Amino acid sequence: MTSSSFSHPDFSAPPLAAAPDASFVPAPADGVLPDGFFSTTNLPTYVRVGGAWRLPQQPRMDSALVLDTRGELWVREGRRVSAGDLVAVGAREDGSEGILVHADAFTATDDEGDEFAFMSSEVSREKPIDYAQMARLLIGERDRGGYPVWVAGPALVHSRARADMVWFVRNGFVKALLAGNAVAVHDIEASIFGTTLGMTGAGRASRGGHGLHMRAINAVRRAGSIRAAVERGIVTDGIMHACVEAGVPYVLCGSIRDDGPLPEVITDMLAAQDAMRAHAVQATMAILVATALHAIATGNMLPSFVRDADGMLRELPTICVDSSEFVVSKLKDRGTRQAFGVVTNAQDFMQILRLYVERELHVRELEPRGAHAATSGAGR
Amino acid sequence: MTSSSFSHPDFSAPPLAAAPDASFVPAPADGVLPDGFFSTTNLPTYVRVGGAWRLPQQPRMDSALVLDTRGELWVREGRRVSAGDLVAVGAREDGSEGILVHADAFTATDDEGDEFAFMSSEVSREKPIDYAQMARLLIGERDRGGYPVWVAGPALVHSRARADMVWFVRNGFVKALLAGNAVAVHDIEASIFGTTLGMTGAGRASRGGHGLHMRAINAVRRAGSIRAAVERGIVTDGIMHACVEAGVPYVLCGSIRDDGPLPEVITDMLAAQDAMRAHAVQATMAILVATALHAIATGNMLPSFVRDADGMLRELPTICVDSSEFVVSKLKDRGTRQAFGVVTNAQDFMQILRLYVERELHVRELEPRGAHAATSGAGR
Amino acid sequence: MTSSSFSHPDFSAPPLAAAPDASFVPAPADGVLPDGFFSTTNLPTYVRVGGAWRLPQQPRMDSALVLDTRGELWVREGRRVSAGDLVAVGAREDGSEGILVHADAFTATDDEGDEFAFMSSEVSREKPIDYAQMARLLIGERDRGGYPVWVAGPALVHSRARADMVWFVRNGFVKALLAGNAVAVHDIEASIFGTTLGMTGAGRASRGGHGLHMRAINAVRRAGSIRAAVERGIVTDGIMHACVEAGVPYVLCGSIRDDGPLPEVITDMLAAQDAMRAHAVQATMAILVATALHAIATGNMLPSFVRDADGMLRELPTICVDSSEFVVSKLKDRGTRQAFGVVTNAQDFMQILRLYVERELHVRELEPRGAHAATSGAGR
Amino acid sequence: MTSSSFSHPDFSAPPLAAAPDASFVPAPADGVLPDGFFSTTNLPTYVRVGGAWRLPQQPRMDSALVLDTRGELWVREGRRVSAGDLVAVGAREDGSEGILVHADAFTATDDEGDEFAFMSSEVSREKPIDYAQMARLLIGERDRGGYPVWVAGPALVHSRARADMVWFVRNGFVKALLAGNAVAVHDIEASIFGTTLGMTGAGRASRGGHGLHMRAINAVRRAGSIRAAVERGIVTDGIMHACVEAGVPYVLCGSIRDDGPLPEVITDMLAAQDAMRAHAVQATMAILVATALHAIATGNMLPSFVRDADGMLRELPTICVDSSEFVVSKLKDRGTRQAFGVVTNAQDFMQILRLYVERELHVRELEPRGAHAATSGAGR
Repeated sequence: MTSSSFSHPDFSAPPLAAAPDASFVPAPADGVLPDGFFSTTNLPTYVRVGGAWRLPQQPRMDSALVLDTRGELWVREGRRVSAGDLVAVGAREDGSEGILVHADAFTATDDEGDEFAFMSSEVSREKPIDYAQMARLLIGERDRGGYPVWVAGPALVHSRARADMVWFVRNGFVKALLAGNAVAVHDIEASIFGTTLGMTGAGRASRGGHGLHMRAINAVRRAGSIRAAVERGIVTDGIMHACVEAGVPYVLCGSIRDDGPLPEVITDMLAAQDAMRAHAVQATMAILVATALHAIATGNMLPSFVRDADGMLRELPTICVDSSEFVVSKLKDRGTRQAFGVVTNAQDFMQILRLYVERELHVRELEPRGAHAATSGAGR
Repeated sequence: MTSSSFSHPDFSAPPLAAAPDASFVPAPADGVLPDGFFSTTNLPTYVRVGGAWRLPQQPRMDSALVLDTRGELWVREGRRVSAGDLVAVGAREDGSEGILVHADAFTATDDEGDEFAFMSSEVSREKPIDYAQMARLLIGERDRGGYPVWVAGPALVHSRARADMVWFVRNGFVKALLAGNAVAVHDIEASIFGTTLGMTGAGRASRGGHGLHMRAINAVRRAGSIRAAVERGIVTDGIMHACVEAGVPYVLCGSIRDDGPLPEVITDMLAAQDAMRAHAVQATMAILVATALHAIATGNMLPSFVRDADGMLRELPTICVDSSEFVVSKLKDRGTRQAFGVVTNAQDFMQILRLYVERELHVRELEPRGAHAATSGAGR
Repeated sequence: MTSSSFSHPDFSAPPLAAAPDASFVPAPADGVLPDGFFSTTNLPTYVRVGGAWRLPQQPRMDSALVLDTRGELWVREGRRVSAGDLVAVGAREDGSEGILVHADAFTATDDEGDEFAFMSSEVSREKPIDYAQMARLLIGERDRGGYPVWVAGPALVHSRARADMVWFVRNGFVKALLAGNAVAVHDIEASIFGTTLGMTGAGRASRGGHGLHMRAINAVRRAGSIRAAVERGIVTDGIMHACVEAGVPYVLCGSIRDDGPLPEVITDMLAAQDAMRAHAVQATMAILVATALHAIATGNMLPSFVRDADGMLRELPTICVDSSEFVVSKLKDRGTRQAFGVVTNAQDFMQILRLYVERELHVRELEPRGAHAATSGAGR
Repeated sequence: MTSSSFSHPDFSAPPLAAAPDASFVPAPADGVLPDGFFSTTNLPTYVRVGGAWRLPQQPRMDSALVLDTRGELWVREGRRVSAGDLVAVGAREDGSEGILVHADAFTATDDEGDEFAFMSSEVSREKPIDYAQMARLLIGERDRGGYPVWVAGPALVHSRARADMVWFVRNGFVKALLAGNAVAVHDIEASIFGTTLGMTGAGRASRGGHGLHMRAINAVRRAGSIRAAVERGIVTDGIMHACVEAGVPYVLCGSIRDDGPLPEVITDMLAAQDAMRAHAVQATMAILVATALHAIATGNMLPSFVRDADGMLRELPTICVDSSEFVVSKLKDRGTRQAFGVVTNAQDFMQILRLYVERELHVRELEPRGAHAATSGAGR
């Protein structure tokens, strides 16, 4: 989330000018890649086909480059490749085999560091958090018709953070919500019984509370779906209710930890990944809150960049919130380098982010038209 | 893992003597429980049917009590209940509605604490770890034909811990291994390429390393199965190799984070839970190492106790190893109270546990027959 | 921080009615306690002297009960005892030796838990945080002339939290600030250079930044004191500046980690403990933010209760804020059981707490006089 | 702890050949540095004096460069500078002002990484730990007469780790032990009462246990010193006992958290820092176990390198062990970059390190003389 400039590589100069086309080899069987397949990263990657360097569709890491029969270039998971599909092979990322990974695409330009700097580790609870910048980014995405994807863990449902998430859904800041069964269960338990895992909003255990999440699940299973439970007035508030009412799509992915599960939960993991990725490929911003499993799963699917209408690339704003440095560091270690880590309590994060968004919106109402575009641009 | 005594409740004395039979109501639809269903815990639970107090089969938490047509009593997940199945209803756990939860079944008998004690929190990296006791427990389970279930996360595959896990598999200490795709992928990458996630055993990145786990997956997909990859000499060592060779069953459960996945991975979560539970109901000991997802999933399925051949119950020895207090505390918070937490690095845990097991075995070889039964009994 | 009632033990009934006076034995040397000395806790403790049960002055844990020549009873650290001082001996805490520890003085009265409750561990990042209640407590203490003691670690000085702390100081919510050299150094570096440890408020390293904290220290050492640096306009804003201007006393305790140190830092640990305790004995509320060392040091000195003017006792409201469960659990493990843990980022805590205090103050302004006493009372 | 080569900079080539002498300015007052003083790092630093580039004595970070009246060059804390002492001024670290910080002195030479590598964060519980290399390093230091300094926190005293530390002391692997009051108190409580903080070796609270550490302190205060307590048979085993018997010097530094303290504890922090530094300047290896405060304090004092007899420099082997990534990352963030982090339980670390040292010693006994020098050299 630092200022950076972008330019495409200069393909007209050596050595890239003399590079060959990438080599493609047919997949030997359904879901099996040819030996020596090129394994993708989430960085901008150019592939030389018919003399032209092209950016493939739907970039993500840990996948294959597939050239379809219409000459279109895709990044596709190995399991989705069919026998005979043409798959790029090669080991070099420098263009000399027709594939170029643009690793330094978004190198920050304002580095002022010296050799012996404190606090150089990237993720730390002691780093200041620029909520104002995050608020401007989020408003900017909404206002330009971007596609902010939220990925949430159960801590988001506890107490006040739930109301804040509802606010973000209702006010157009969420284009898709990716979560697991537990998020929806806790949210719906809160709506029906006023508890989460049998614990009241004040953090006290309630009598018989340990079974309440099972009763909430059962009520929705009886209704047939979350939408039906909302429509019949069984679920009357909360995050799922807001998504149904606002028409915000959600993907609830199953896990072996699930109780129930709720009816809409996708229990097959490959189907669930496909459903998540349908949103990931559209993402122009990602906010990952309080979940290791879903955050890393989403990180695996996200490119590190967004391709704007003018063909230019910019870093995909990715915010990862967790109570410990561990999850954020792990996300980065798994390759999602662009993630900006916020080490804090999810409930507090949501409350402050909302506050800053509300403040910024209020300021903009008071400003003359167009003024904020100039001032807020600096933050991007 | 403290000394405790057990006795069944006295059902001949008031108020239990006067308790009614439990009430059963038919399930209204497949996978839907009747209103007021009794939600189970993992504690010993007695149900009065036909005047007799009975312990249901296959106990676990968050499930229903089902009386089948042959009069057998089961604990069954709501999703597995069919329309018309008789399901126990009731809210009280004190027997007054025919269901008694024996919460204090294993109360420790040697408490010497006073009112103002330090270190009373149950999980702490500063607590001493009694490896000798764990070693004796594990040997005892093996020697009496118990069913120790191991649940492992990817950290187990790194470097030396992998060799230690192989040793436990080969020496009969593992009756089932429950894990995810990543454990098998890392293990097989290590066998084929000598790396995990492209990192060598010395912790350095290797050239082109980021794609190696994808190549390992592809190699097994091409072979068709892990067993086939072992038989064809593609996978020549490691945990999966040892399980195949030793005939130790493994369950690989999918998740949305998975790359690949490997062929044997169960991608449907309900099928995966069923496969895990088939082992959980047999477990006489559980060792959960370096995984939050799988540990809590398994904890959800495990009763807190084992029923021995003589009908007596004892606490199910459950060891949960993680680098942070968080996972162990969460496991306990979700109801797996019997878990003994070991806050350490998984690699170090495996190495020391193996060392203690080897030492204990060596001592027993030197001892006259039967002697160790007496000496080691104190530790149980 | 739960509702509870208090009553003194009934000393007129058996067995307490028949208890003997406590026994006192002279200390054998300066700073040396007699064998069998009674080691205090932080719980309400009654000592029978001349037939009357009395609460000693200045209660704290890990100390001795000293009867002075005027018949006054004190809790005093062993190192502060002089040869010949009369020190209570005894091992029993049940009154049978004339010393009664009232362990259950503040037992919560509204427990609704059942046997199998989730989330029973006391400290968790997933527990909801009742900022509204904390805000009411803090306002209540200020308005009744209480003595809220704040204990702060360096994370408090980063970025926005610093401004929030200044606000609390300026608005009368801080009666004493206990901290270390680092807090003051970071705060003063921020005032002089706009950085902390050479890092700007946006989290970037500044050129030559690693030496800036040393230059800040040197500037204050040259001025002679923090007060002098404020008066000469070297330090123009921040926490230390606010304390100097508002006349809020601060204790800066040294440690072996210190750079400098700053002039007012108390480098002798016994003198520093005495200076801290001078505030601890007056505390009616304690807020410990982002520091393990100072929080536990303060916790060691604090009684678990406050004695109100009417002689009744109430639990000392103690809030401990840290990014991890570990510090809060450790504080409790070391005996500070009354601590309410807030697991979050210090910066976010400060911002939200201030927001809630501001809101509550605003609401009270709008309310008719006296109304809030009734409504907010429930929270105490 | 990776292979690296070292060479001094080439001072005969431009631009260094043309660099001026460093500038020195008198300190304006005792303990006050002149404006613009050069603030040191822990990296190899050359200062040009009289045309020659020299390495100052007793390097450490956050200090000043002082030229004494005999022409000797020292690194000295600001508080230890006297009025009139000549102190180097300058802001540039590139030699252009006569001061050169050799930041890349020990650049690793075997980097094989590519652009998109996993696990690049430096500290992680998931990284493999090379105990064999650490064992060889430690044996090497002992055998060549090096000065390994151990810095320990209280977790080292719990249970089995205590016996392992005693073993390292007795076998010549410890040249100095730096710790706090708590380490000695716990160790001595264990010797006298068999508990630490009233908790038995099995992790159970003992009756009256909360006061036992106070009784242990009192016993030593009565004896007059730890040495006296050992000599009179009050303390009969443990770490302090081993240090006294083996003549290993120890520094016990006070803190505001201390109970007691024990007689030898240095309660003045400046005196304590001086006592620690007397060992730090001799250190050829540092092992920091389970302490944030003492580890960072020591890290602040240690240079990042050792100067061997031949004038060549090598990285100072520094091992930092903690249960969480946080402490190690913080140590590195504060400038101790050379630290190799081991994220594990201190008790397990000690046990495995000892095991590897014992094995390596056993192997060397079996080998022909001199053989190990060649084989183990690769690890350094």
